[in-house]
Amino acid sequence: MRNWKFAISSADEAPDSAPILLKGDICEILKEAARLGYDAVEIHVRETDDIDYEVIKKCRDEYNIKISAIVTGRLNTHGKCNLMDDIPYIAHAAVEGIKTYIGIASNLDADIVLGWVRGNVPPGGRKSKYMSRLAKKLKILAEFAAQRNVKIFVEVINRYETNVFNTAKEIVVFLENYNIPNCYVHLDTFHMNIDEVDSAEAIITCGEKLGYM
Amino acid sequence: MRNWKFAISSADEAPDSAPILLKGDICEILKEAARLGYDAVEIHVRETDDIDYEVIKKCRDEYNIKISAIVTGRLNTHGKCNLMDDIPYIAHAAVEGIKTYIGIASNLDADIVLGWVRGNVPPGGRKSKYMSRLAKKLKILAEFAAQRNVKIFVEVINRYETNVFNTAKEIVVFLENYNIPNCYVHLDTFHMNIDEVDSAEAIITCGEKLGYM
Repeated sequence: MRNWKFAISSADEAPDSAPILLKGDICEILKEAARLGYDAVEIHVRETDDIDYEVIKKCRDEYNIKISAIVTGRLNTHGKCNLMDDIPYIAHAAVEGIKTYIGIASNLDADIVLGWVRGNVPPGGRKSKYMSRLAKKLKILAEFAAQRNVKIFVEVINRYETNVFNTAKEIVVFLENYNIPNCYVHLDTFHMNIDEVDSAEAIITCGEKLGYM
Repeated sequence: MRNWKFAISSADEAPDSAPILLKGDICEILKEAARLGYDAVEIHVRETDDIDYEVIKKCRDEYNIKISAIVTGRLNTHGKCNLMDDIPYIAHAAVEGIKTYIGIASNLDADIVLGWVRGNVPPGGRKSKYMSRLAKKLKILAEFAAQRNVKIFVEVINRYETNVFNTAKEIVVFLENYNIPNCYVHLDTFHMNIDEVDSAEAIITCGEKLGYM
């Protein structure tokens, strides 16, 4: 029994240093990913981009491939938004942007990845205050997503790139403590290699909460 | 035949997040390291600290332990100096500070570790210009050190902490290209785990140039 399906990362454009394997026109990407034997494509996109759903769905079905996840990182790297910001219009724009991503994912039968857009605890900030703020916003988003049949995959990212959720356990405990539904852990071997003491143990810790890897 | 000798890191004081295992009075550190079975102690210290060589040598000999290396990182983290800086008095202070470290090492029959104090290529800077500047200064220091029977161990540090010398090969090629004597590669499994494609291959690449690990 094979439970794993494999996806490949993609974007319309990205710097060579980014971990994006296929770049360019989405239909060409879907075709190439199918040719390479992947089950699905992961898409990095701005939440503001115009998306021609009919064309994408047509290509997707033609090449018999799926879209696994819409990645929200650009709302942070380009859009400078994050969910735990002290500035209310930044945190608010993060929520609104993620809702747009959830809409995109819903239209394409995909889920979303939530990484950098969660934000960072600022220097000197009390962590519990920011985590509580994040939890409140994430709960709203998780419910919004559930209504649209979309899951949220919260990404474990290493200590050099973010100061919250560096390990699988941190996310699992957070989701439990704040009782947040419809959110799952997204693991990445690159990050695990830096901050997990034992990668196998990290997977076991996620258990049913492992959503995407 | 056992070629490896083991050292443990130490400092008078350091934050809990630093990879420093023994902290406090140097004589207590030497005693504890000897008790734990280490062959030597690595010391993180400011180049401006007063050092009571007689006391240290007495403890060192009493506990039959050596001092493997004096680590220069604090000249950068606290002293804000680096060898490739565009500001001449900063680069000059880096050279002078490292000479002081070489003097300390010479007095204690140790070598020195050169990590962050090498500096970074600034955003938009032409790498070859900065590497050539670094090479010129490192050559002066390498000769200064050789005269005092001290080796320089240049540390491989991962991409998140510095933008030069992220792999063993990068240092080996640099030392060869600029024909710099008396410098060796310092490998650290934490950094190797992030940026070396193959850790065993990195060690082989160093060959005779592997100085400290």
